[in-house]
Amino acid sequence: MYEAKACAVASPTSPFRSVTIERRDPTPHDVQIEILYCGICHSDLHQARNEWSAMPTVYPCVPGHEIVGRVTRVGSAVKDFEAGDLAGVGCLVDSDGTCPECQTHHEQFCPKAVYTYNSPDRHTGKVTYGGYSDSIVVDQRFALRIPANLDLAGVAPLLCAGITTWAPLRRQNVGKGQKVGIVGLGGLGHMGVKFARALGARVAVFTTTPGKAEDALRLGAHEVVISRDAGQMAKQAGSLDMILDTVSAVHDLHPYLACLKRDGNLTLVGAPDQPHGVSAFGLIFGNKSLSGSLIGGIQPTQEMLDFCGEHGITSDVEVIPVQRLDEAYERLLRSDVKYRFSIDMSSLRSA
Amino acid sequence: MYEAKACAVASPTSPFRSVTIERRDPTPHDVQIEILYCGICHSDLHQARNEWSAMPTVYPCVPGHEIVGRVTRVGSAVKDFEAGDLAGVGCLVDSDGTCPECQTHHEQFCPKAVYTYNSPDRHTGKVTYGGYSDSIVVDQRFALRIPANLDLAGVAPLLCAGITTWAPLRRQNVGKGQKVGIVGLGGLGHMGVKFARALGARVAVFTTTPGKAEDALRLGAHEVVISRDAGQMAKQAGSLDMILDTVSAVHDLHPYLACLKRDGNLTLVGAPDQPHGVSAFGLIFGNKSLSGSLIGGIQPTQEMLDFCGEHGITSDVEVIPVQRLDEAYERLLRSDVKYRFSIDMSSLRSA
Repeated sequence: MYEAKACAVASPTSPFRSVTIERRDPTPHDVQIEILYCGICHSDLHQARNEWSAMPTVYPCVPGHEIVGRVTRVGSAVKDFEAGDLAGVGCLVDSDGTCPECQTHHEQFCPKAVYTYNSPDRHTGKVTYGGYSDSIVVDQRFALRIPANLDLAGVAPLLCAGITTWAPLRRQNVGKGQKVGIVGLGGLGHMGVKFARALGARVAVFTTTPGKAEDALRLGAHEVVISRDAGQMAKQAGSLDMILDTVSAVHDLHPYLACLKRDGNLTLVGAPDQPHGVSAFGLIFGNKSLSGSLIGGIQPTQEMLDFCGEHGITSDVEVIPVQRLDEAYERLLRSDVKYRFSIDMSSLRSA
Repeated sequence: MYEAKACAVASPTSPFRSVTIERRDPTPHDVQIEILYCGICHSDLHQARNEWSAMPTVYPCVPGHEIVGRVTRVGSAVKDFEAGDLAGVGCLVDSDGTCPECQTHHEQFCPKAVYTYNSPDRHTGKVTYGGYSDSIVVDQRFALRIPANLDLAGVAPLLCAGITTWAPLRRQNVGKGQKVGIVGLGGLGHMGVKFARALGARVAVFTTTPGKAEDALRLGAHEVVISRDAGQMAKQAGSLDMILDTVSAVHDLHPYLACLKRDGNLTLVGAPDQPHGVSAFGLIFGNKSLSGSLIGGIQPTQEMLDFCGEHGITSDVEVIPVQRLDEAYERLLRSDVKYRFSIDMSSLRSA
């Protein structure tokens, strides 16, 4: 074991404090990474504040699953990485590797999946600590290769916000000749716009906020629909092949279902606590479908990163030092960020 | 025009009475059919009693869209039928034939689709009259070929209950090596069981009624799950590729979503007035989807009928004379029929 520096909360209401945590020395299959940037996902806030009854938080809690950095050491059996390489880590750091889910690149559904933070750590017997830290050690199967041409601060959010939006767009075979709607322009939505556009689709952004229109177009949208404007919504009726809905509050899905073509799909990646009301008629007339999608497996995550390298895609980020974590969380609650916070982990040296 | 005999209701609360209606003489593209049997669909009851605010009933109303009979006359341009042939008519009798929906065999979504009853009739300028009648005239594009080896009373319900369940099973590529759940064992559900079994899938019937277990197995189910038994439901968790849900009352979909495998699909063919509550978590964990499906186009209906001919599949019916229509409607409301009423239209001669 060795000591790493990290930012942790000690309780649901505690501010972040610099702490020392133990990381395992790399086993033969492990990659040790010096963390350069870590994105802030809304899940980090939920977990830090113990807001998920199904996954109670173990304190101290070190969140962070949008990790990018440089390899500092590799185990003797590691083939694809060597010291000095860039590497990324997303929401998962382990799985059994043998179950049908793992065998088909859906590690997120492995019954033994280990999340990057607040998950039982099979190596230490304790709990996993995430990326608000200067270092992490992961099995090589969960280390992602990072294209060399991208801004690293903007790469970090790809590891969660990126794959979460990439996976459903790919599952629905989004591409040229199709029209895709993106509902909500936040950390997830802005990545959805970039991906859908780069995949060749025509992109419509649906937002309640007229002030976001200019930015949506800059991000790649072909058009912007103010979802509170019934006239604008009516013009979209029956026109979309797919809608990616990134809103995590309960909202009326029927106006969006009405925008789908026959056989169209609306995929939810946001998960409110309360159920959505879904009229069977809204699905039956047009043979439509409503889906959910949870992050993505390691292979599709690598495909997404490679695609980002080819197309020069990163997340739009506001880089902050760890000293501003508490403030960033408060701003996150107000959606006051365009479009993701990325922590410059070098700031941890002086914390 | 010529006079045909029919059974009609004069108001939402009127009993059925024998009436005379006008049918058009066959145009060059029309097929005239002597109706031998007509199934009773729950939609007939809704329409007869004016229970659909979106489709107000025009009285007198002659329901019936599960029609099978014998061709008595054809227009000069009709190629595929001649007098003496068997023929069927389902929920549709016309569409524009040129729109993208018609061109891709989804006539049910054509903006100019004409339903078999209570729909504006472009030929007469009045309203369409359905199959509770001794005769009907339809455009040849909406006449279906009927395999010669099947019991005609049991064929009639294939034209609606059959295609309604066939289409979603085919859309989900149900076949060998898959496990399919059928929720609800009524007019639709019992057809779903027969089709899923004949397509090669393993079939589980979900019912609230233990008394239906024996019948479900007779119809082709491999197993029966009493959906109110949490232990039996738990055993199905994550095991089904697809669920066809035929229940038209609001019910909790989450126990069924939990039975789906990753990427599994639950398709609704029943449409309650009230929305279902759908938790995004139930879809996100497992990348699952919830769909709707509306009857089916003419080409898939013909494929379904041909499949029924090859596999000897018909609906289980209770044959009644028109004189028992009012009683049949009351029994329909109590689900007191195994599994579809089929009207012997020869009884209309003495009505």
